[in-house]
Amino acid sequence: MSDTLQELKDYLDQMNIYGRAAELLFWDMRTIMPKNGFEKHAQASTFFSTEVFKMSTSDKLEKIIDELMKPEEYEKLDDMWKYVVKKMKKEFVLDKRIPTDFYEEYVQASTESEAAWEEAKNAKDFSIFAPHLEKMIEYTKKMMQYREPDKEIYDALLNQYEEGMDSETIDRLFTELKNELVPLVKKIIAAPQPDDSKFEGKYDINAQRQVQKLLLEYIGFDFDSGTVGETEHPFTMGFSSKDVRVTNHFYENESINAMFSAIHEGGHAIFEQNINPDYDGTVAASLDFMGIHESQSRFYENILGRNKNFWIPIYDKIVELLPKYKEISLDEFYKEINHVRNSFIRTEADEVTYCLHIIIRYEIEKAIFREGVSVDKLPELWNKKMEEYLGIVPENDAEGILQDMHWSDGSFGYFPTYLLGSIYDGMFLDTMREELGDIDKLLADGQIKKITKWLNEKIHKYGATRRPKEIIKAVCGKEVSAEPLMRYFTEKYTKIYEL
Amino acid sequence: MSDTLQELKDYLDQMNIYGRAAELLFWDMRTIMPKNGFEKHAQASTFFSTEVFKMSTSDKLEKIIDELMKPEEYEKLDDMWKYVVKKMKKEFVLDKRIPTDFYEEYVQASTESEAAWEEAKNAKDFSIFAPHLEKMIEYTKKMMQYREPDKEIYDALLNQYEEGMDSETIDRLFTELKNELVPLVKKIIAAPQPDDSKFEGKYDINAQRQVQKLLLEYIGFDFDSGTVGETEHPFTMGFSSKDVRVTNHFYENESINAMFSAIHEGGHAIFEQNINPDYDGTVAASLDFMGIHESQSRFYENILGRNKNFWIPIYDKIVELLPKYKEISLDEFYKEINHVRNSFIRTEADEVTYCLHIIIRYEIEKAIFREGVSVDKLPELWNKKMEEYLGIVPENDAEGILQDMHWSDGSFGYFPTYLLGSIYDGMFLDTMREELGDIDKLLADGQIKKITKWLNEKIHKYGATRRPKEIIKAVCGKEVSAEPLMRYFTEKYTKIYEL
Repeated sequence: MSDTLQELKDYLDQMNIYGRAAELLFWDMRTIMPKNGFEKHAQASTFFSTEVFKMSTSDKLEKIIDELMKPEEYEKLDDMWKYVVKKMKKEFVLDKRIPTDFYEEYVQASTESEAAWEEAKNAKDFSIFAPHLEKMIEYTKKMMQYREPDKEIYDALLNQYEEGMDSETIDRLFTELKNELVPLVKKIIAAPQPDDSKFEGKYDINAQRQVQKLLLEYIGFDFDSGTVGETEHPFTMGFSSKDVRVTNHFYENESINAMFSAIHEGGHAIFEQNINPDYDGTVAASLDFMGIHESQSRFYENILGRNKNFWIPIYDKIVELLPKYKEISLDEFYKEINHVRNSFIRTEADEVTYCLHIIIRYEIEKAIFREGVSVDKLPELWNKKMEEYLGIVPENDAEGILQDMHWSDGSFGYFPTYLLGSIYDGMFLDTMREELGDIDKLLADGQIKKITKWLNEKIHKYGATRRPKEIIKAVCGKEVSAEPLMRYFTEKYTKIYEL
Repeated sequence: MSDTLQELKDYLDQMNIYGRAAELLFWDMRTIMPKNGFEKHAQASTFFSTEVFKMSTSDKLEKIIDELMKPEEYEKLDDMWKYVVKKMKKEFVLDKRIPTDFYEEYVQASTESEAAWEEAKNAKDFSIFAPHLEKMIEYTKKMMQYREPDKEIYDALLNQYEEGMDSETIDRLFTELKNELVPLVKKIIAAPQPDDSKFEGKYDINAQRQVQKLLLEYIGFDFDSGTVGETEHPFTMGFSSKDVRVTNHFYENESINAMFSAIHEGGHAIFEQNINPDYDGTVAASLDFMGIHESQSRFYENILGRNKNFWIPIYDKIVELLPKYKEISLDEFYKEINHVRNSFIRTEADEVTYCLHIIIRYEIEKAIFREGVSVDKLPELWNKKMEEYLGIVPENDAEGILQDMHWSDGSFGYFPTYLLGSIYDGMFLDTMREELGDIDKLLADGQIKKITKWLNEKIHKYGATRRPKEIIKAVCGKEVSAEPLMRYFTEKYTKIYEL
């Protein structure tokens, strides 16, 4: 190994130690820290995050990277290190374009905006948030002009969260979907709905924890390389492939949401646990392709978890842990977990209407960055689209445009990745069927681990070294299309709702 | 505030950030980290501990401290900072006397010795551990010759864990106790014993967790400034008075141990939570007086927790959480939690025989450091003393001399602090009765918080700024004596066992 590569490795080791401290503080603050511990934990967390940022933009690192980019050094690197060096160089160049003053202003504005958003949401009053949203839009434009002056701004934003993706492709995919989805949802809503009153009751929290454990083990989450915690909102975080953590939130009067959160976060975690362990601690393991990441969590949650056969091998155990389910047949359970409702809140939506929630956000983001629609017109635009696609109008902005925090911290361009994930899933399902045969049968036979192994081999092990379009091409052998997802929806819901 | 004091504060802030990372990694490794996460967590933990050690012995710190020790600066400091500067100077001088080479050798030997001890214990074979123990004794002697060349070696060791304590005082206290305790235990063991078969059964783990929460809240543990975790062995750790954490271990077939661990660790935690918050992040809050620290955990565990009146206000709630207790009256419960047995293992002993377990260790430590008894004679000496004081002889060294890990890492002089804690408790109880009246009545009336408040005011708030002898003097107005503890034992157990 060359001395310079060794230098890079040592540098990354040091950066990872600080990064680990920052992440562990983050984890602890959300899962267990008592409230009075906040101030000092936050102070330490800021310190370590700042150190990581400084190290990742230092002259020293630049020198090391540039040295390794020289042909005579570069040629000696193996594929992973080639990827790492190139990717770091690329990030370095983009980050260096941002003036430090501006970056600090941006962070400050974003902190204030998040606080204003929270206040506005609680007060159900968009006007509190509006000036901050306007500012964040301006700052985001400026940021992208610094980072990627040659790219159209909204495409540059989309690229941040899904490399190689552009709005031309997304327009095509989302339009394909929307045209068929809106009428399908109307038909479903008009059909007779399942009776959900049977599900009302008490579900012991500790029993729900055991259900989570059962589900995670069932789908292939490795408890030797992962663990669980409890937080207000479920999330997944990983220190490396050897320590990936998922959280959940349990409610005594409801048990289905926590089951699907467990499966969803479990999907994210299985991805991270199965990245080639050689990539640990490098950008080759940093999954910043959110569409692909989301495709894995949603594959487990929706394609597998909302399939009746998924539950056949374990339903008895669920009933044993949650005796309330004694009164509920697997058939009734299956109908309820696929109960389509036209509702206001994205995070509570079923898999079908969820797509429309995302399309609304995508179209509004385009209206902001492409058509220059002003902030004060956005609530009206939101409500108009809700009525058009879902046939309902929010009573207030808290259940409308204020419901998600994404725009408050400037994460424009993030929303589409959720739906891209599902679109990819439709394609993965088609290919998986060709290669593994009948998926329903595999699930019913308790062979879900074969599916996990397939995903490990086809997608997970590569970590971040393949770009989203390359993954789709390599796995499915064709371009991205929304047709498989739409076909999956139509077939599945025509049966369930006897359309 | 002087510039130099500000410099010290900034320096401590930085040191505390590293210290917090090291402690949080420690916490995480024991409570939640999945096993494959070990290597990288350990690496980060070593890094931060080393940084803290380097910072605590740096030339820069020495310069700051020396500057603040100058009369014109020193006089401007408030009492706390005077204490902090003096104490840091003292530690600095002692630490600087240890050659770095030797320190590293010592740490290395200690790591190897711990591993050998574990192996020996599992194999029930003292000979595996003997050469390491011999080495640790030699290293400890050397260490103390460096640190405190003018002090008699065993007194210097005792001083490390209980400042101002010496073997002359301990000899007096332990002899006083032993002379009356050995015959008392013999009488108790000869008396009719309570029937403990009723306690056999299953205790739901989650219900035990709720019992722990109930007990901690009852005695005054503040969940806004503290939290709980689960580990192999219970312990308490604090980041500051605002974040103190206790752990426990729950077993399905036994519930009493976990209750008393909760109360014991809760006692430690209440101490730390109630130190003057201005002391946070300084040596004024570093409780290195283990006897005093232990006196607080043992006061809650034994003096309060093993008093029948403690349970009167909460016994119904315990029965509700652990239905097994429906068959057990409070009277029967009281007898069981004070069931005296001559048993082998210190950590499982009742409060009476516990004293004798400690005295045995103390006498053996003196034999090692004062009389130069060789390592190969120690198991025999152990067994002889067990027979003499407790009337039983261990079948093997695992339940004899190998049971505790303390000597394996060189913590000679630590054991006596456990019993000193109980001796202090006897004195505190006397004074508390004078000042608060009938303690039994306070407990029975659910007024335990008044007791906690008294301890807060008399002991906790001072943190480490008063030395053990000063605390006893200030609280009780007299010299340390074992008479109150012995009187407490005699009165209590004469009644329980109708002697």
